[in-house]
Formats: sequence, C-alpha cells, structure tokens
Amino acid sequence: MAREKVRVCFYPENRCIEVDKGENLLRAAMKADVHINASCGGEGYCGKCRVIIEKGEVKQKLQVKLSQEEIKQGYVLACCSTAESDVDVRIPIESQIGDKGVLLRRPPIPLKGYTLSAKDWAERLPQWELNPPTAKFHLILDKPSLEDNISDAERIKRGLAKLAGLKDVVIDYPMLSALPSIIRAASFDVTVTVLDRGTEQRAVRLEKGDTTPRQAAIAIDLGTTTISAQLVDLQTGRVIAEASDYNGQISYGEDVITRIIYSTRSTGLAKLQSAAVNTIWNLIQQMVEKTGIEFCSITHLCISGNTTMIHLLLGLDPRYIRVDPYIPAATHFPWIKASNIGIRIASGVYLRCTPCVASYVGGDIVAGVLASGMFNSEKLTLYIDIGTNGEMVLGNKEWMLSCSCSAGPAFEGAGVKHGMRATRGAIEQVRINEVTKEPMIITIGNRRPIGICGSGLIDLLAELFLTGVIDERGKIDVDLDTPRTRIGESGKEYVLVWADESGTNRDIVITEADIDNLMRAKAAVYAGIQILLQEVGVSIEDIEEILIAGAFGRYLEIDKAIIIGLLPDVDTDKIKFVGNGSLLGSYLMALSKNLIKEADRIASMMTYLELSVNPRFMEQYVSALFLPHTHKEMFPTVMQRLEEARAAAGLGPLERGSEIS
Amino acid sequence: MAREKVRVCFYPENRCIEVDKGENLLRAAMKADVHINASCGGEGYCGKCRVIIEKGEVKQKLQVKLSQEEIKQGYVLACCSTAESDVDVRIPIESQIGDKGVLLRRPPIPLKGYTLSAKDWAERLPQWELNPPTAKFHLILDKPSLEDNISDAERIKRGLAKLAGLKDVVIDYPMLSALPSIIRAASFDVTVTVLDRGTEQRAVRLEKGDTTPRQAAIAIDLGTTTISAQLVDLQTGRVIAEASDYNGQISYGEDVITRIIYSTRSTGLAKLQSAAVNTIWNLIQQMVEKTGIEFCSITHLCISGNTTMIHLLLGLDPRYIRVDPYIPAATHFPWIKASNIGIRIASGVYLRCTPCVASYVGGDIVAGVLASGMFNSEKLTLYIDIGTNGEMVLGNKEWMLSCSCSAGPAFEGAGVKHGMRATRGAIEQVRINEVTKEPMIITIGNRRPIGICGSGLIDLLAELFLTGVIDERGKIDVDLDTPRTRIGESGKEYVLVWADESGTNRDIVITEADIDNLMRAKAAVYAGIQILLQEVGVSIEDIEEILIAGAFGRYLEIDKAIIIGLLPDVDTDKIKFVGNGSLLGSYLMALSKNLIKEADRIASMMTYLELSVNPRFMEQYVSALFLPHTHKEMFPTVMQRLEEARAAAGLGPLERGSEIS
Repeated sequence: MAREKVRVCFYPENRCIEVDKGENLLRAAMKADVHINASCGGEGYCGKCRVIIEKGEVKQKLQVKLSQEEIKQGYVLACCSTAESDVDVRIPIESQIGDKGVLLRRPPIPLKGYTLSAKDWAERLPQWELNPPTAKFHLILDKPSLEDNISDAERIKRGLAKLAGLKDVVIDYPMLSALPSIIRAASFDVTVTVLDRGTEQRAVRLEKGDTTPRQAAIAIDLGTTTISAQLVDLQTGRVIAEASDYNGQISYGEDVITRIIYSTRSTGLAKLQSAAVNTIWNLIQQMVEKTGIEFCSITHLCISGNTTMIHLLLGLDPRYIRVDPYIPAATHFPWIKASNIGIRIASGVYLRCTPCVASYVGGDIVAGVLASGMFNSEKLTLYIDIGTNGEMVLGNKEWMLSCSCSAGPAFEGAGVKHGMRATRGAIEQVRINEVTKEPMIITIGNRRPIGICGSGLIDLLAELFLTGVIDERGKIDVDLDTPRTRIGESGKEYVLVWADESGTNRDIVITEADIDNLMRAKAAVYAGIQILLQEVGVSIEDIEEILIAGAFGRYLEIDKAIIIGLLPDVDTDKIKFVGNGSLLGSYLMALSKNLIKEADRIASMMTYLELSVNPRFMEQYVSALFLPHTHKEMFPTVMQRLEEARAAAGLGPLERGSEIS
Repeated sequence: MAREKVRVCFYPENRCIEVDKGENLLRAAMKADVHINASCGGEGYCGKCRVIIEKGEVKQKLQVKLSQEEIKQGYVLACCSTAESDVDVRIPIESQIGDKGVLLRRPPIPLKGYTLSAKDWAERLPQWELNPPTAKFHLILDKPSLEDNISDAERIKRGLAKLAGLKDVVIDYPMLSALPSIIRAASFDVTVTVLDRGTEQRAVRLEKGDTTPRQAAIAIDLGTTTISAQLVDLQTGRVIAEASDYNGQISYGEDVITRIIYSTRSTGLAKLQSAAVNTIWNLIQQMVEKTGIEFCSITHLCISGNTTMIHLLLGLDPRYIRVDPYIPAATHFPWIKASNIGIRIASGVYLRCTPCVASYVGGDIVAGVLASGMFNSEKLTLYIDIGTNGEMVLGNKEWMLSCSCSAGPAFEGAGVKHGMRATRGAIEQVRINEVTKEPMIITIGNRRPIGICGSGLIDLLAELFLTGVIDERGKIDVDLDTPRTRIGESGKEYVLVWADESGTNRDIVITEADIDNLMRAKAAVYAGIQILLQEVGVSIEDIEEILIAGAFGRYLEIDKAIIIGLLPDVDTDKIKFVGNGSLLGSYLMALSKNLIKEADRIASMMTYLELSVNPRFMEQYVSALFLPHTHKEMFPTVMQRLEEARAAAGLGPLERGSEIS
C-alpha cells in the first residue's frame, strides 16, 4: 500500500522534495540536500534546528528550546516536527549559512562612479601618519646594582624617558606582576609597549629582547550580519590578512531590534556578547594562523560598528535604543582591555570602539566619514551607507548633519519572495530586452540561479521600469505580449528564470508585493536625503560629491540606482565608492592616533536628526513612492532615458499626472 | 600501675604541665590551657597545629603538612606527636595569637617626649585640605527627549561639566554597563563618583538620588604582623571606626624574608595575597557593621605598607627584594580596582598604595614622613620607625636620606627566652632597686606576668645596666649578693619574676644570650643613625627633631632607650612621637589628594642608602655593641646618670678602657 506523499519546500534555498506524509523535517532537509544546523542528532536538545513553517501543517513533539514568542512566530524544531501536508519551511539565516567565501570577494569595479583607494588618502587625509596608538620601545637597561637600585618599574620608566622622552608613564597593573621575572630572563634587554590613551601614556606589556619589528593591530567592522577583520602590520601599515564571517549573534535574531529584545532576557546580553566575541576571536585566530605571526604581536584592536552592535559587544544595556526617545547608554567608549569582554588575548591588549553619534548613526558611519576624508572636505558632500537601515550624512569640514531611515532589509533580499543574500547562485545583474521582455542574468559564481540579491533587485527594478513591464507605481502589466508576466499564486509577477533553468527547479519570480517592498526601501532613503538637504536649505544640485559605503555599495550599479530613484539624479562623476567604510576607518585608526582623535571630533560635531519626529519625512517618503519619483523634474536624466527606452520598446510617452494616488 | 610522667612546657606562654609519657601534644596543650590553632580535630589534615620541639623527644605519626625545611627546623604537628620525655614546645605566633584587644589600645602618653596630634597638623601640613581623591556629584539631569537625545553617558558628562566644570571625564567601563537602568530607575536624579587619578578624571560609580552625604574611605596600615584600618567619613574627615587584626599571612611566616621565600612556591604568592586581602576584608566588614554605614559609601582605599607587604598584596613578584642588589618590582603603584586583588567590594572602588622608596624603605615610611610633616620642615629631622627592621630617614624639606638596618625582632620579643608580644600579661615596665637588685614590674592588663615585651626589655636592659647587674658588654655579674643573678640551664641569667609569682609557674628570666640579642638590635639601629649622619657630614647635636613612629614607639620610654644607646643622647624635648605613621599617612591621603601628590614627591626625592654595602656600617655596628656605646663621649647625659646610679648602688666608677674585645 503506497503511503500518501507530501511536498516539502525549503526557503530561501527554494528546494522542494516529495516525501512520505509524516516525514521528519530534518530528514526531509537531508534528502533535499538542504543544510540545517543540528547537533544533537535530532533529539531536540540543542535547539539549533529552528525553522519557520510558512505554509502547511506539521505535527510537533516536545519543543523545550522554543520561547512563547518564537512559537507565535511559527518556529518549530525541524527534528521534532513532521510534515502532515505540503509544507513551506523557511530556514533562518543561522542555519542556512552557506558559502562563506563570498564574504571575502573583492569589490567589483562599479560600472559608473569611482572607488576610493590608497592613492586618494594622501590628499583626503592629510592628518594620517603611521603613528599607532600603541608604540613599542626597545630598551637596553642598565642592570641594577647596589649603587643603582631603583625598582624594575622605575628603571623601565627611566628607560622610556631616556629613549623616547616619555614622562609620567603609568605602568599597567597586570604588567607589574610578571615584571621582575621577565626583565631578568631578558637580562634587562626588553621591549615595552606603551598605549597612548590621549589623557595618559600607559605601559601595557613587557617582552624579552627586541620585538619592535613584530607589531600588529586588528581592525574590525562589526556588522549586524557580517564581521570583517583585518590584521595590520604596524611597521609597514599594510593589511597582511583579512577574514570575515557571519556575526554569531545571527542565531539570536537577524536585525538590531530583535537582538535588543533578546538582550533583555535574563542572560540574553551575555549570550549576545559572547557570540560576537567568539566570532571576532575566530577571525583573529584565522588571520594569525594564515600569516604565522605570533599572537603576542597584536597590540591593540580598533572596532567600528553601529551603536547597537557596540553596546552588545561591550555588554552595555541597549534596551533604550529602541524606544522613544532612542537613547544609547554611551556614544563614546574608553580604551578597555580586550580580555575584559572575553577576547582571549594577553591582558595588555586594549581595544577601542569608534565613537557613535546617536542610537541609529553609529561608529561605522563615523569611521566611514573619517576614512573617506569627508570631514576634511570643502565640498558639500553626501555620505550614504545603505544596509538594513540607510544612514546618511550631509556636510563638509565645517558641519555635518546625519540621519538614519528604516529602509528595511529589502535590498538585502529579505521581504522579497526570491530575495537572497549575495552568495553563490544569486542573480546580481539583470538586463531586459525592450521588445521581448526576455531577461539576461549574471549570477555570483556563475551557478544556476537560486534567487536574487540586492544589486540584482535594483537592476531588475530599473529594467522592468525602463522596458515598461512596470509603471511608475510599480504595477506589473500582465497584458504584455510575453509569458514572463502573469498572475501567480502571490498575485502579479514577472518570471525572471524558468523552473527548468533555475537551480531550484522552480520559477524565480518578482512579485508586485516584492516591488512594493523595494520601493518603500528606496523611498525611505531618498526621503532621508531630501530631509537633510531641506534642513540646511540646499538642493541636490549643490551636492558636490556623493560617497557610497557599505557592502551593498560594492555591487551597486549607480545609474540603475538613480533610475529607480534610490539615489538623486546627479552627474555620476560626483559619485565615489568608499567600500567598507567602517572597516577602512578601523584600519586607519589602528595605524594613526591622530585619526582616533579626529573620529572623536567627528562624532562630537555631527548633528543627528531624528526622522521619526520630522513632520516632513512622511511627506517626502510618500512622494518618493513612485518611479523614479512623484516630482519627475528632480530626475531629468532618468526621464530622458526613460523616454528613449520607451521609444525603443515601441511604447508611447509616459502619462502625465500620475500624482500621489 | 602508675604510668611514667613527663613534663611538657609551652613557649612563649612558658606554661608547663605534667602528663603521662606518650601523651599527645595537642591534648597536653589543652590541659595546660595553651591555645594552639587546630581545626581538623587532631587528624593531621589541617596542618595548623605546627609547633617547634626545642628540647626533648617526641614520637610522630604522619606529617603530610610539613615541608623538608620545616622538619629540619624542628617543626612537628602537635596533634600527631606524643611526648616521650620532658619536652619544650614552642608555639609559632600563628597559633599563639591570643588577645586581639590589645591591638586597639590607645597609645600611652610617653614618659618623656611629645606625641603629635591633630592640632599639630595645621602647622605641619599646610598642604592638607579636605579634598579627597574621589568626589561625589549629585546631578539632576534633564530627561532625554527627541530634541535632546544624547546618550546617557554624554548626559552625565554634560552634567559634570555644568555642575563642577569637569572636562574630559572618562567613564569607567564597568559603570557603563548598568548605566541605562540605574539612570532611569533614578529618574535622572543621580550621584556620580569621580576618581581623580592625577592624569585623568574617571567617573567610577553611579547611584540613585543624592548620596553625597554618604561617602567614606578606608585607610590601612598594612603591617607585616598587624593590619590596622580606619573607616573615614569623607564629609567630616573624621575616623568613624577602627579595627586591627594580625595579618593573615603570619601563618606563612613571621617576617618578610620567610614570606618572600614562601611566595616563590607554585601558589605561594596567591595564598599570601589572599591572606592579606581576607584580613583587610574582615576589618572592613567589622568597621562597616560597627558603624552601620552602607558598604557602597566606601569610595576608595589608601594603603601604606612596607615594600614587601605591598608586593604581596598586589600579587607582584617580590623575590628580588631579598637578593643583592635588592630590587623591588615597583615602588610606585597605579590606582587599581579593589576587586582586581579580590577585595569583594563594588567594581568602582579603587585603591592606592603609598609609593615606596626601595626594597627596605616602604610606603609605611613615606606615609609617616608625610603625616609627621617632616617633608615640610626646615629643621634637620631624624625619623625612626623601629619594628623588625629599623627604618630611618634623615633630612628636611630640601633633602632626605633613608636607610634600613636589620635590627632583628628582639624588641618584638623574638630571640629572647621569655620575650613575647605586647599582649596581656606582658611585662612592659621595669624598675630595679640599686641596692637590693629587686625588681618592680608592671604588666599589660595587670595580669600575672607571663613574659616580657619590647618596652619591658628596654627598661630591663637599662635598669640592669644602671644598677650594675650587667656591665658595658652586657655580661651578668653572678657574684652579686642577690639570688636574682645565677647560672641557669641556659647560662647566666637574671630572674625577673619567681615561679610562684608568675603566670606560668616558672621563673621569668633574662639570659646573657637574650641581652646579647638585644644589644645587637640596638647597635644596628644606632649604627644606622650614625651612617646617615656621616653621609651628610652632620653630628648628633645638629639634629633638631627626632620623630619616632611605629607600634614599638607607643610604649617606649625614651630615657631608657637613650641609656642603652638605642637612641642618641639628645635633649628629650627634641623627641616627638608620631604613633602609627603609616596609618596616619594613609588616613591623611584618603582625605586629601594634595597629600597623595606630596607622597609621590617624597618617595621620589628620598635617597636610599643600602647599608649592606656601606663599609663603615659594620665598624659603627661593632662600636655600638657596648652599653651605651664604645665611644662614651657620645652619651654624656647617660654617663653622668650612670655614675650617679653606681654611686647610689655603692659601686665604684666605671672602669676605663673597656674597649672592643
């Protein structure tokens, strides 16, 4: 007697499989070759195999590892659940993490715009000099005698004064304890590491012999999703290793708000802290192993991240960041011992977090403004970092105004049916033929497509608009003479990849709902830009330079972003890419204490505009919910190109009067 | 059948008892009402009941808790040993600790000399002002709003700048973590404690509401034998509680050298550190309970001690203090968190150790020089602290020269047959009749005498000399017409108390060997003084003030100390008592950051003279091994008094020519 079959589909992989009704979801995932983290062998103890049932019926056994809240959100443990009908299963990012290699991809050269590089810094950062906050001093000390019997510590201070003119150096307490043994084992030939904390010179480490050639620092971009790190040789100023990984906190929530909520649980904050610390530690280990340097070469860490990430890393209570009036515990952070937050490194290694501006404009932005040289510029500059939030800064060397708009994670692939992160198999570039409406796509890694990542979505949206597949409001024209547009189970959609060509054996589509999400995201960013401009009474034409930062920026096609009205319609020569501004800033600060001071100054001088209380923001947002914008006159270049494209497609001119509906 | 009896005598109690041969020593001690610490019920596990067999034969069972070195020194565990003959048992100080009450006795008014008191400070310490290194600031902060949304930490900094003009305050990392909860629970009405570290202002604690009226500090004299502490109200500057106890490290050795050796064992340093920390913690608890203040009122600790004690407290390796050229790890110490060394107090409480000068002139001396105002004085001043070592400082406000001589612990009762510490039953004052040679004695607590403490020994030595019982070389005249002098089992001796009058039922005597030890001790001190004077080319007459510090000083009869040649023959009006200079200095520093700075200056300006390399020291020492001194012309007053005394006793004039034998 044949058993009844059901179909289980796993997302975001979009991989489906037929199994016997009542099959265990973890077994189904195995058969489907879908990876779900599960380490207890399927007994429900480890609680790692959490998945979300998006459709269909499952039966569950015990669920000890799930909170009421998680159950409400549709979470089950895969290992304890069976499929009782056709089921759609979404695997949260903490279990789906696939190919980490993509995190280390070099940024592609943008098709338009210019990427800042080392040769720009000389001009943009005159303050920069290779003068790190920690310095090593090789001291060949007189051996003590009855005639010269000052203490070991005073001998070191005398040596530092003689060699480097350092006065009033404070010897760090942990360095004192091992001092007598080390200094004698070294026959009074030692290297002392001194940390310049600005207010105070502090001797933090003592080593035998001359270790001055071996000095390195760690620069970190502490992102909500990804943590990127560099190992920097402080002698040459060069990056000698890089490593990236997903932030271990992802298991506790994908965005800052979820994590803040999690942090309010009894041991939530400690868990989040140690998750980030473990990721950082793993990255450090990887880089150290890769280069073969000694751990003890590392003398300090510079870390930039958004305000919430820094709070979680330092174990600071972040709960008031998410409630009106959005107040962080701190925006400036002292030098602290890395071992104090659990980084298993020598006690003399201190870390510094880049100061933040406000709850939603963090040290990552300050680092980027620093690294891009914006704070030195006479030009009116707009700095934009688009990720889950869009943070932006308008200003120049005299003043800076910043804000953050909840763009939502649409451009990161979330909230989009076949959206996905920029990993292998993601569609990252799209062209659509004006006449046939047939697409041409390129995927990351040249694999069969399995979904669409952020840059692909922007391309797609622009191409759909240029070719008349969608109108100014993002509505899909299903009456076109193409099988690509249709009414699917989620409403109107455009089929980008047919099932037989896809890596998932299902059609890859973009729906009207997806487009709506993307338009909300772009509208929020554009509205933010408008508010900043209005606040200081300047217009788009006055902007002399636009700096684009963020992992997002690495794959962005500028002209497409302008076509959909995400970025303002400016001469693309004005646009420059910063790359990962947060990492770059951390790197530069690790090398130069001047720039650490500048970062303090930047964070202090920057004004923060809270958009949620700005009455004009909603107005601007609604106006921006059109392609490219309700006020077409703001996008003359786009309008011209659009007319050309419509002509090529054999369409009439755009209707006038498509004002706010 | 009657069992064979043996006699077991316990020292220093000098209490004997007859027991059956084969009796367990711990049971014998119980019967004799002699206290030996023993906590394992006599099974040999705790190892606390260590005693030294000075005479006689014992049988021992297991001795797991004794090192080879201890066995060689004659140690056995009392609980595991039986008396097989008459036995003399010495109980090391760690087990004999008796009446702690005596530690808190107020210093008696010395018979000669003057004790400095609070009214002298105004003149002697013009720098003093009630301005402690920690200050509390009550801030009623504006509540955050969307218009005023700086972080909690920046809000506090702004409040401190507004209220107190403090700039660039660094917020201590541990204070940051709880900041958001506390500040809101307090409705933004908070008190911030700021520690002035000299180089840096650091906000270390946040409390709800106005706690400025509740602020206290702890002042500590960290002695080798005794730790004394004061709880100081920082509002009034008054001592509100005092407590003292034996330093818990005594179990690991009575003097600094033994403890340094112990510290080199695998976990030795950690054990010594935690022993001192536990004692300090107990004292703090006692004082807090006594006064009913809250623990959280305590905002800082100031600790003075000799160089070794500070090393052990901070866990710094002290091993090179005891080997040529006698180098400490450090002499200046940063402000460190009290919790870092295991004091179980809030993480925002910092402690500071008074800087030391060298391995054998510590922060206790610096504190005393500070408290006595010597560093402000135009007068040529000699500061002496006599304990196990004799430390002394010669100088004035312009310069200071210091040294330390190993006086040995004779004046503390060690190395003297019936010597004992200054506890109940100790003979502290002695007079001897010139004619009969009969003594008159006073004991501490007016108990039956059980031994002789330091001041009693000095009195006794002086009286024996004045009455001709001993000669200039300390030799006892056993041909005198008195039963008090005789040849005992340890050689020639003078009987101070007959057995039937003593609390031990045995004669209390002083032997020639005892006298020899006392003379070595006094000679070392006097030689040290001479070397300091010679080094700067001044003579005794040039000394304008002599300051005497130390627990020893509290019971000292000045003129007797001069008679035996311990102190130079000066006008006793020049002599002033400082009391516990180390504690007094700690107290003053706890109240005044000016004085903390002065202590740094004192420690840095003071020159240290290492006597062990001074070729003239041994010469001076040998000259001083006479009563009062080989060079009688140095002691004109003493010589005159001696002639008078000898005349009264019917003795002839002192022989001339009693030169070095």
